Amino acid sequence: MKQMKVCFTGFGNATRPLIELLISEADRLAANCGVSFVIVGAADSKGAVVAPDGISAKALYQVRTETGSVCNTPVFGKPGMTSLEMIEACGADMLVEGLPANLPTGEPGFSNIRRAMELGMHVVTANKAPLALHGQVLPELAKKQGVMFRYGTAASAGLPSLEMGALLGRSDELLEMAGIFNATSQYILEGMRSGMSYEEALRGAQAGGFAEANPAADTEGWDTAMKTVIQANTYWNADFTLADVDRTGITGLTQEDIKKATEEGKSWCLVGRAAYGEGKRSISVKPECLPNDHPLAKGQWCDKILWFKTRTQGEQVHYCLGASASGTPGNTLLDMVAIARSL
Amino acid sequence: MKQMKVCFTGFGNATRPLIELLISEADRLAANCGVSFVIVGAADSKGAVVAPDGISAKALYQVRTETGSVCNTPVFGKPGMTSLEMIEACGADMLVEGLPANLPTGEPGFSNIRRAMELGMHVVTANKAPLALHGQVLPELAKKQGVMFRYGTAASAGLPSLEMGALLGRSDELLEMAGIFNATSQYILEGMRSGMSYEEALRGAQAGGFAEANPAADTEGWDTAMKTVIQANTYWNADFTLADVDRTGITGLTQEDIKKATEEGKSWCLVGRAAYGEGKRSISVKPECLPNDHPLAKGQWCDKILWFKTRTQGEQVHYCLGASASGTPGNTLLDMVAIARSL
Repeated sequence: MKQMKVCFTGFGNATRPLIELLISEADRLAANCGVSFVIVGAADSKGAVVAPDGISAKALYQVRTETGSVCNTPVFGKPGMTSLEMIEACGADMLVEGLPANLPTGEPGFSNIRRAMELGMHVVTANKAPLALHGQVLPELAKKQGVMFRYGTAASAGLPSLEMGALLGRSDELLEMAGIFNATSQYILEGMRSGMSYEEALRGAQAGGFAEANPAADTEGWDTAMKTVIQANTYWNADFTLADVDRTGITGLTQEDIKKATEEGKSWCLVGRAAYGEGKRSISVKPECLPNDHPLAKGQWCDKILWFKTRTQGEQVHYCLGASASGTPGNTLLDMVAIARSL
Repeated sequence: MKQMKVCFTGFGNATRPLIELLISEADRLAANCGVSFVIVGAADSKGAVVAPDGISAKALYQVRTETGSVCNTPVFGKPGMTSLEMIEACGADMLVEGLPANLPTGEPGFSNIRRAMELGMHVVTANKAPLALHGQVLPELAKKQGVMFRYGTAASAGLPSLEMGALLGRSDELLEMAGIFNATSQYILEGMRSGMSYEEALRGAQAGGFAEANPAADTEGWDTAMKTVIQANTYWNADFTLADVDRTGITGLTQEDIKKATEEGKSWCLVGRAAYGEGKRSISVKPECLPNDHPLAKGQWCDKILWFKTRTQGEQVHYCLGASASGTPGNTLLDMVAIARSL
């Protein structure tokens, strides 16, 4: 049995369901993967817990749910301790970073990940901002430190395609990528196609629980832009940052635009797109009006879709049918298990 | 510039277009990937060539085209030399095995690959039989010898998904896989749907140049069975062999069957399918009658399609639009470059 000491930062939408998964899947992971995760630290906005010999996932979940902060854990709780201090104190083998994507700084996620790597920890992150803002800084630091760094959830939960894309991009096979990465925008566009107003459709997405807290993150294309940067940098070993993205959201689209497209057998989609190499270096997020039978236009609002134009392997399309918020912690767990298994 | 000394076995449908690609892409590979391949050996059915300092791809191609065998190369030609002897004599860093999939023995491909690995060579193979017949024997030997072994073309040219599948399967995420891997069978079934007889449709496939030499390899499901075994073994680190496959081809389907399916909004497809783990161990190739909007039924005959049922990541679908015979050498080259780059 491989035991991995892990610590968690953030205890919100990314981390809470992940802890639930660690509780429900612990026996299976031990039996089928030979892996056991021991929680030695966690931090939320009110403080932290540092438990060198481990705290059970159940106990951690319970104290957070009942008291509002992990820092109220008996004996090991540290009210007021920051996530960075927790990382430095807990002696984990792996940091699982689950803070929200704070723009424009990416903090404290960026500093947390950097410090964890400096301390020799492997890192799994669901936080898009540190990667999207800082290009190759973190992947290069991981390489230098000899630690593993996986970020499938940040790149686009539901599409475990990073390895495939990197194989193609780094072998000079990948000419262009494009994708549908933001469910809220697609939900709104599908709602408008069926006659809803923009506002009605947005409220539906918020009620569904998959919209980001600030609607602009979805509808102005920031979420798609971050995912496109992270993927393009991974596939081509490129150095894009969020500032490079030519970004237009969906808020400028009118009912008239939508209707006209429908009449022409087309659909508006919010597409992240990038090309790199041989003199090309472009990255954009824009509403694109695509024929209904285009691979990127064929999905439901809840599908994530990735399209590659390749040199000799034709058009490659990967999609996840009905990607859901519940798939996100599964993607993070997948990265944790992948690291644990490869050690 | 990384120089890799390579040798080739077989000079048929797999190798000839690959050599063409090595000629046309040499400058790009040097400029964009920093990789240069030096051919130090090649063998066909009449003999071999062994050139420790390298023979140009153009010269090799020319002597084969003009004289019928590489063994007629001036000075370095070796009439009567076998592929195994060539491998032992040439001092290559990498074997590119392009012999046809000989059933039931898998020879001489299996012995060639084994010997190359024993000699410390990395191996790229387009030959399905050695992998499909011998389970994990070759992957384990590669591991033991510390050499790289890539077989994307054998697993299913056009779907560079082996890394993605292995990530899912080895992290206990992959519950079931299914796929459309044989263009000839799909072409025949699509032809029959449009009113052609079985024989007419088969002749069309043969005229198109993508049918295997022996129609049974396609229509009796052997090609799909080999690809399904190779993929399942890679994804789950499983130990299937061709003998495990519950195999039924498409030759038993009647015009009546096809018509009835069409009336019900369904399509017959030749599907390779496998499940593994948690008490399950099944692998089959069968015509399946699927609803027209099923991910495996939605493609054109020329699309390769791979479907994964996962534990937390929903249904994952990967497809190649219009996979063609010309994509096959590109897939082999991709594996060669991937190995060269990672050294």
